Amino acid sequence: MLRPFLVGIAGGSGSGKTTLTQLLATRLGSRCSVVQHDAYYRQLAHLPPQERAMVNFDHPDSLDNELLVAHLELLRGGTAIEQPEYDFTTHTRRAKTTSIAARPIVLVEGILVLSLQKLRQVLDLKVFVDAAADVRALRRARRDVEERGRTLNSVFDQWFATVRPMHDRFVDPARVFADVRIDGEDLKRRGVERIMMELQKYRGEQSVAALSTQRTLMSDETSA
Amino acid sequence: MLRPFLVGIAGGSGSGKTTLTQLLATRLGSRCSVVQHDAYYRQLAHLPPQERAMVNFDHPDSLDNELLVAHLELLRGGTAIEQPEYDFTTHTRRAKTTSIAARPIVLVEGILVLSLQKLRQVLDLKVFVDAAADVRALRRARRDVEERGRTLNSVFDQWFATVRPMHDRFVDPARVFADVRIDGEDLKRRGVERIMMELQKYRGEQSVAALSTQRTLMSDETSA
Repeated sequence: MLRPFLVGIAGGSGSGKTTLTQLLATRLGSRCSVVQHDAYYRQLAHLPPQERAMVNFDHPDSLDNELLVAHLELLRGGTAIEQPEYDFTTHTRRAKTTSIAARPIVLVEGILVLSLQKLRQVLDLKVFVDAAADVRALRRARRDVEERGRTLNSVFDQWFATVRPMHDRFVDPARVFADVRIDGEDLKRRGVERIMMELQKYRGEQSVAALSTQRTLMSDETSA
Repeated sequence: MLRPFLVGIAGGSGSGKTTLTQLLATRLGSRCSVVQHDAYYRQLAHLPPQERAMVNFDHPDSLDNELLVAHLELLRGGTAIEQPEYDFTTHTRRAKTTSIAARPIVLVEGILVLSLQKLRQVLDLKVFVDAAADVRALRRARRDVEERGRTLNSVFDQWFATVRPMHDRFVDPARVFADVRIDGEDLKRRGVERIMMELQKYRGEQSVAALSTQRTLMSDETSA
């Protein structure tokens, strides 16, 4: 059996990377697991509440990247992990965790998954989802207001205080490390197909052969 | 007496051109009049309501540019105008108009004031206010939701249906015609000063002399 193949999916806030990840996960079904970088935020329980509010959550240091790398190495080796569950209201990890199996394809999603060398080193395929700044800003505004109950003013302030400067400093420069860049405004028509093609290409002859064998077996069953 | 000096102030939706215009108007006080391109929307009373809703209000043809040019020529010649008042709910002109005097500086503001040759020809100084797409999108979203009671979804849809394509097609390309480009994210600290300097420069020796004379007279009065 092939070892799990790790696909990093990065891109700015509102670029469409979560949508792409969900579309791929649906397409790949039980052949795929999803790891979210967001689940690895550091615990801030030791900080008084007013200081917690001042943490820059768009900076790479706000995430426990060492734990994520350790988990990705386990998955690569075929071992399941216990992904933390993060409570964004208290900024602490919940007692319970999420079991993530080492399936053939592991999608690793987050704005910064291509921004740190130690993370890039454990990824087999690096994807950057790209979208214009106005698209990203309006998508984020809509999501934060509709799904997270934020005010438009708080979205506005956060965008200029942290999201945008961290995007320019850490997220966007990482595009150069991507093997594939995907247009975040054309995910359904093209993005998913492109990645599916890349998966076939990068997994090489062995996996294509494996897929062919599966198909042959299925055809045999059907015709039997 | 010098003829009125016409300053066109263009820039995309949310670029900061209205704020710049207001700051300049406050600074110039009674030496300045303001003309809004928005007041010159064409009457749509002859169209049934469902067709009015389909008009692309970001396209130059939706504005009565002939009337605006005629008005600007009157102002240049020292004659006051009666600017239309537009009712955006019924898409018709109100019966009453706004008198605009031919003051020494006339600010002409609108997204498209540099996009049409016949408009550019009557302007003495052409200003383009520039801001990144995410800044413009979030500013517009905030204004439309807070001041105009729109939903974020309608702002989102309108941005991609008309505002953005018309910006790319008509508004943004007109930046090349500008004598001065202003950073729409730094209006209060720099933008206003820059235009004030340009006004001094473009009005030439005659007006500087006029200003000096005024100052001398004032000094005389003070010292008298």
